[in-house]
Amino acid sequence: MTKVTAQLSVSLDGCYAGPRHDGTGDWMHSAESHGFFRVTRWVTAAMSWRERQGFAGGEHDVNSEIVAESFGAAGAYVMGRRMADGGEVPWGDEPPFRAPVFVVTHRPRPTLLRQGGTSFTYVTDGVAAAVAQAREAAGGKDVAVAGGGSLVRQVLRAGLLDEVELHVVPVVLGDGLRLFDPDLGLDDFEAIEMSPIRVVPTPEVTHIRYAVRGRAPLVLDDRGRGTGTPE
Amino acid sequence: MTKVTAQLSVSLDGCYAGPRHDGTGDWMHSAESHGFFRVTRWVTAAMSWRERQGFAGGEHDVNSEIVAESFGAAGAYVMGRRMADGGEVPWGDEPPFRAPVFVVTHRPRPTLLRQGGTSFTYVTDGVAAAVAQAREAAGGKDVAVAGGGSLVRQVLRAGLLDEVELHVVPVVLGDGLRLFDPDLGLDDFEAIEMSPIRVVPTPEVTHIRYAVRGRAPLVLDDRGRGTGTPE
Repeated sequence: MTKVTAQLSVSLDGCYAGPRHDGTGDWMHSAESHGFFRVTRWVTAAMSWRERQGFAGGEHDVNSEIVAESFGAAGAYVMGRRMADGGEVPWGDEPPFRAPVFVVTHRPRPTLLRQGGTSFTYVTDGVAAAVAQAREAAGGKDVAVAGGGSLVRQVLRAGLLDEVELHVVPVVLGDGLRLFDPDLGLDDFEAIEMSPIRVVPTPEVTHIRYAVRGRAPLVLDDRGRGTGTPE
Repeated sequence: MTKVTAQLSVSLDGCYAGPRHDGTGDWMHSAESHGFFRVTRWVTAAMSWRERQGFAGGEHDVNSEIVAESFGAAGAYVMGRRMADGGEVPWGDEPPFRAPVFVVTHRPRPTLLRQGGTSFTYVTDGVAAAVAQAREAAGGKDVAVAGGGSLVRQVLRAGLLDEVELHVVPVVLGDGLRLFDPDLGLDDFEAIEMSPIRVVPTPEVTHIRYAVRGRAPLVLDDRGRGTGTPE
């Protein structure tokens, strides 16, 4: 059955990039990019990523297999417009997705067809519509929310996310774009409960996959301790 | 050799408690307490904790062993004043520390001697002084920074923390007191690097122990990717 999944590389303080680039100067010289590249360094080094992109070298290792598994599981993708635009040049003629990508945006754009099976369809009627279109296109495989972090948060907030895998990198950035932030719209006595379903330790990064259980109240139990676990 | 260690239960979004209680009304009814009890629920349930506190029941399990290991490794503790004051009544006549506790504070107070080996010494000349006194008292065992999160952050910021274990609970609180926040004083192109040295998965909580490597610059390597690993 098709699951809606996401995976994101984050620092120990939950940032998927440095503080947001304000547009002045080159993004490559920004704190945002430096944080982003630090937390995605393990991916860059992974051989599967390199094979897809046509690079030589790298090693077959756990991290490479995790990247490969991530691409292999997805039948379609949902992506934010900022990420799609930012990746257009770097991904070139044969982007690594090899499946339909549904871009969530307010600004229409004609569908782009790339080599190797990747296409970009610009969906202007919201996150849920993009997820629904991706489900149809996924052919029974999963819908992967490719990013950015802001879109993953929107899908989670909408209650549409089934699983999320965090690639927790052992670095503290201090500040940056956070996956989980007040935009989630949780009130003070409300939380989102998850269950860890797989943990893969490596020296560079700890991979933790969670099933999203859903929103639940934060209540004290009869010992005066917190429960909050949804039934 | 004595290590300075810390361990903290945190939500997926890095919070060790809900948003700070402003002092009006009972702390037990605050969002801060509800978040705190949710992320420490695994501890409450662990039998070692219960044995120390004199409760009956609970199970011997991985989480109980981890709590017991944590207490067993420490020869002395460093603690923040707010935590020490807040725990005074709940911990009663025989607090679970069974070792000297050095409380970091601006306000002097005479040393308190409790039953079972716990003592509270109020250190007014700063975090480094408290850590130094704890080292002397630790008898070759570790110095454990018991908390709160604010003190752990200060010890980390001062470069005095050797290891930190995060008990990552699979819940998103949305907002709260964060262990890693801008008080760390990291600039935009600077990070704190760590290495994961042990990962213990359980259904309720993922335990990840890190060795603190230290501050390092965030730089792009010659592939345009982030390195930042200190030599």
